[in-house]
Amino acid sequence: MTQQGTLGIAVIGTGKMGADHVRRINDVISGARVAAVVDIDEARAKAAADSAEGCRAFTDPAAAMAAPGVDAVLIASPGPAHEAALLSAFERDLPVLCEKPLTPDSASALRVLEAEQKLGHRRVQVGFMRRYDSEFMKLKALLASGELGRPLMLHCRHRNASVHSYFTTEMLISDAVVHEMDQSRWLLEQEITAVTVLKPTPSADAPEGLSDPQLVIFETSGGALVNVEMFASCGFGYQVQAEAVCERGTARVGDAHGMLVNRPGTWGGEIAPDFVARFEEAYDREVQAWVDATRRGEVVGPSTWDGYAAAAVCEAGLRAQKTGERTAVEMIERPALYR
Amino acid sequence: MTQQGTLGIAVIGTGKMGADHVRRINDVISGARVAAVVDIDEARAKAAADSAEGCRAFTDPAAAMAAPGVDAVLIASPGPAHEAALLSAFERDLPVLCEKPLTPDSASALRVLEAEQKLGHRRVQVGFMRRYDSEFMKLKALLASGELGRPLMLHCRHRNASVHSYFTTEMLISDAVVHEMDQSRWLLEQEITAVTVLKPTPSADAPEGLSDPQLVIFETSGGALVNVEMFASCGFGYQVQAEAVCERGTARVGDAHGMLVNRPGTWGGEIAPDFVARFEEAYDREVQAWVDATRRGEVVGPSTWDGYAAAAVCEAGLRAQKTGERTAVEMIERPALYR
Amino acid sequence: MTQQGTLGIAVIGTGKMGADHVRRINDVISGARVAAVVDIDEARAKAAADSAEGCRAFTDPAAAMAAPGVDAVLIASPGPAHEAALLSAFERDLPVLCEKPLTPDSASALRVLEAEQKLGHRRVQVGFMRRYDSEFMKLKALLASGELGRPLMLHCRHRNASVHSYFTTEMLISDAVVHEMDQSRWLLEQEITAVTVLKPTPSADAPEGLSDPQLVIFETSGGALVNVEMFASCGFGYQVQAEAVCERGTARVGDAHGMLVNRPGTWGGEIAPDFVARFEEAYDREVQAWVDATRRGEVVGPSTWDGYAAAAVCEAGLRAQKTGERTAVEMIERPALYR
Amino acid sequence: MTQQGTLGIAVIGTGKMGADHVRRINDVISGARVAAVVDIDEARAKAAADSAEGCRAFTDPAAAMAAPGVDAVLIASPGPAHEAALLSAFERDLPVLCEKPLTPDSASALRVLEAEQKLGHRRVQVGFMRRYDSEFMKLKALLASGELGRPLMLHCRHRNASVHSYFTTEMLISDAVVHEMDQSRWLLEQEITAVTVLKPTPSADAPEGLSDPQLVIFETSGGALVNVEMFASCGFGYQVQAEAVCERGTARVGDAHGMLVNRPGTWGGEIAPDFVARFEEAYDREVQAWVDATRRGEVVGPSTWDGYAAAAVCEAGLRAQKTGERTAVEMIERPALYR
Repeated sequence: MTQQGTLGIAVIGTGKMGADHVRRINDVISGARVAAVVDIDEARAKAAADSAEGCRAFTDPAAAMAAPGVDAVLIASPGPAHEAALLSAFERDLPVLCEKPLTPDSASALRVLEAEQKLGHRRVQVGFMRRYDSEFMKLKALLASGELGRPLMLHCRHRNASVHSYFTTEMLISDAVVHEMDQSRWLLEQEITAVTVLKPTPSADAPEGLSDPQLVIFETSGGALVNVEMFASCGFGYQVQAEAVCERGTARVGDAHGMLVNRPGTWGGEIAPDFVARFEEAYDREVQAWVDATRRGEVVGPSTWDGYAAAAVCEAGLRAQKTGERTAVEMIERPALYR
Repeated sequence: MTQQGTLGIAVIGTGKMGADHVRRINDVISGARVAAVVDIDEARAKAAADSAEGCRAFTDPAAAMAAPGVDAVLIASPGPAHEAALLSAFERDLPVLCEKPLTPDSASALRVLEAEQKLGHRRVQVGFMRRYDSEFMKLKALLASGELGRPLMLHCRHRNASVHSYFTTEMLISDAVVHEMDQSRWLLEQEITAVTVLKPTPSADAPEGLSDPQLVIFETSGGALVNVEMFASCGFGYQVQAEAVCERGTARVGDAHGMLVNRPGTWGGEIAPDFVARFEEAYDREVQAWVDATRRGEVVGPSTWDGYAAAAVCEAGLRAQKTGERTAVEMIERPALYR
Repeated sequence: MTQQGTLGIAVIGTGKMGADHVRRINDVISGARVAAVVDIDEARAKAAADSAEGCRAFTDPAAAMAAPGVDAVLIASPGPAHEAALLSAFERDLPVLCEKPLTPDSASALRVLEAEQKLGHRRVQVGFMRRYDSEFMKLKALLASGELGRPLMLHCRHRNASVHSYFTTEMLISDAVVHEMDQSRWLLEQEITAVTVLKPTPSADAPEGLSDPQLVIFETSGGALVNVEMFASCGFGYQVQAEAVCERGTARVGDAHGMLVNRPGTWGGEIAPDFVARFEEAYDREVQAWVDATRRGEVVGPSTWDGYAAAAVCEAGLRAQKTGERTAVEMIERPALYR
Repeated sequence: MTQQGTLGIAVIGTGKMGADHVRRINDVISGARVAAVVDIDEARAKAAADSAEGCRAFTDPAAAMAAPGVDAVLIASPGPAHEAALLSAFERDLPVLCEKPLTPDSASALRVLEAEQKLGHRRVQVGFMRRYDSEFMKLKALLASGELGRPLMLHCRHRNASVHSYFTTEMLISDAVVHEMDQSRWLLEQEITAVTVLKPTPSADAPEGLSDPQLVIFETSGGALVNVEMFASCGFGYQVQAEAVCERGTARVGDAHGMLVNRPGTWGGEIAPDFVARFEEAYDREVQAWVDATRRGEVVGPSTWDGYAAAAVCEAGLRAQKTGERTAVEMIERPALYR
């Protein structure tokens, strides 16, 4: 590491998420700086590079990783570009924070998993930011404490105000419910073994052709049941909630309660407009945790295995959505490196 | 009607619910009095009769219904005794408030349905008291207003602190989830067309042999989806909650919030110990509504058809619970009298 | 008592509150009937009498009390008429439920207090209905249990959506804050010893000439402090809240939380439009409690002493409001009958 | 500025708050580093210096400010040492973040105010961290929007679980209520013109000799009224709440609601143990805002004038506490620099 021990990061992809991470590293978190930015759009890369002192622009990820002062890689490019970027990082043995999904399908995720095992040590943290949300962290800690006994069910809500016109029924699973897949695995510390997708008559406000909302059910290796209300065009805002039903109590997060206002005839609080507002602090905490661990020479957080598992569960979810049947999840056995 | 226009009621069954209804008619509601009580245990019948001036004790329902001053019948005997009592009441064309279930199965419910049709007019109100709970009434009114659009899903929670040792896995459906069956039909104004029952690994605190909790899913004639968490031995109290997810908003009842207390390290409110405490005012309102309607010569509230439908859905639920499969509900077409 | 033991009540005054009590006795509560109604407006009296079987109309309270079948009196006429009606009832030794205020000032209240003492037994229950609100009852029980230690402060809010054009600054105290005067004495079981009234610059939405809102402070005989936000034209609804701050915790009522709704950008619940909606069940419980106690030959609830104390504290409040100074409350010593 | 544009900070005082700020600058926020630490306890200074690369330890504030690489000063020493440190910083024209209080009394605060005016530009941000709490920021924004009309009253709660044995009745005002003094001035954008302090009989759980709790009332230049419940030994946790009562609605912050848990007989959430846990993110945001502004060459946030005003209101509060009387606040006119 160079320059006062701050971590030099190459940010791959400078779209919405990538640009936000550049801002985060520049302005919010400690101990890191943006050393390089990569975008296939050279002008956009240059614009992003201008925001940070001593930062260089690239159009090729491998070239950026080879640049002096680059100690670590943050991948925020579209999913299909992740595999190549990850393998490039492995070649240089660089630590990576990879935005979700790890890769778009389980076959490619498996290749990444095998490549990392060949390195012989973990290098990747996958960007499942909910694990860094303060409420979900409290829920995880409470479940882990055993105070409420074993978790039996998890009731989840995932609501978006609206979606872009190119959003598809499949993306309800692969782009949205994938968060609950990881969240359930993480909270319960169990693998998901089967997925069922139930579809009510769609909302009249759902975009043409989008079967929205859906109720997705996971069964887990420990015999727990998870149900997820996925509603991408609920209209009223962004809401992510979860209630764990345990043997001796339940615990609920995501009700969101900051300021309460009395207005004519009603009292109440605000609903976040979108995931950026809702999870801003989780993203800050996620990137800070990655930087801190990397500077200590450690790898923490969601692993390549978690990225692979999410991809495998997603594939079962997509089949379940298509067939309407309960669909078993197919996964390899967990390699030693990830135990 | 006699004596100042107050309604003379014969209460059939003086167990826990029957005795409570006797107290309610005596001490809480207006316009009615207990004219007769019936119990196969003569001593218990006499003890109950002593609580009200001019009330007589019987061991035979038909005899009680024939007694002078009896204008209406409240059936609170065990379910298997309901059919005979209902048919006796029909013979005398007496209005009936019948505790749930109408009868224990759909075949007997069908016989009652046919008998009432022969009378040519409705005589029965079935005791689904949730319809008289102030929160559920508000939810019903909001859904009916159309303000939030069409209901798409209903998330229900039904939690008991604990159950008696004789409580069976089947009773989770027939004694407990039957409330959500009626509640869903009433809130959505749709019939239930299929039932699926999912069973996680039971809680260690569930009684030996009881598969508790369960997740029960209803599909409805209008394409809505209902899920019910049924947890009979949750340990922390009695909780009935419902959230309707509609096209343009959601609405939730049952969070229970009266007095909030700050105690060391926590703030919060009370959870009701049981259904009597939770639904006390609903029972009062239900019996008052029945008395008021009867005095006006009307029949309102849940009908024999609702009792039959609950029995039919229950039977599908019990099959679904046994097979683990999605099970279609079989029902006759709705007769003209109940449209 | 006559006719099946139901209590025959003469209702004095058939304005808004009186008419509501007639409806309540007719349709809601058990064990009573309206035997007579009194109004100086004969036509209004006759209209009210028509609502109940066997009920007679009068224009003179004393004549109504002398009528056959009248066992008890409910006074709902304007405050200045209360003293005469109470003394008439005392002449016939009839039990009375007297709407607040007992009388309009402490001198007249003292005369009633002395007259009741001459009877030698309590006959009056004063209509401070908050004592019958389920949340306030829970707060009272919690304070009485001693679990939280001694109450040190009471924070009260009293908000009306709006007031009639004839509402005066003085009425903020005598019509509205009088409820907190009784509520504080009842919850704390202490007398109020001094009152201070603070006036911020009035709301632009307050009616011309009304100094609204105000902050009223009570000191009590046990060294507790009470503050009351009195806001009669808050615009958003009717809200009555109280938080007791005790040595080992605090407890809060009045947040009102039944159904929660998600609407675009906000979640929340309803605020009651007025005191009728907010305290409907408290009124039902109050009148039922009075009927039940009267039928048992007992007198319970807020006493003539409580009515006198409220009048005495009100007078101090009105002086304090005028002078801006802390004003001591002047009261006689509590007579033996009321200890 | 040196080294990649990061801001070199001299932290004066390495006690609880100072050490926490060192950690914050090292590990949490971006764009700054600890260049020097100062403590009269040399060993403690050296220990703190070891935590950051290139950081030097001093026992004299002026020497630290003269050291190379020091661009700005964070004062976290005891209040009586603030004036000298501020004047030293002014000599070098260094930007300062000064923990509250600015100085212990208004006379010394006035000297600092005059010294800064001689510099001709603002250099000081005072550490009133509540202005950086996300809930208070939302309340401020809502009030500033005018949506609810003019604020008429502010109800504040300030509760500590317990206090050290050396905590005095005076410190309730000068150490604790001073936060509400600044908070009220900031939220209302008005000066405080008079203070009254009311003392109920103390809690049995208050330390011997501490008159705890107290009710403190502020009047403001715009005719608003503020009341503060100050309870330093409430036993159940740390709670800071505020409700603004406006002409067309009210808004409330500080109810704290993250995870809700059902436990036997109760549901509810957590109360923060102390101000560090409650305001951790506010401190982070405060220091980040100061660093960001300083790097842009700006001075933002609470000014020396705010520090002086708090001191002046405190002095009135202490007199009011002693006399029991309403006490006018004496302040100089606001200098041009701070308008």
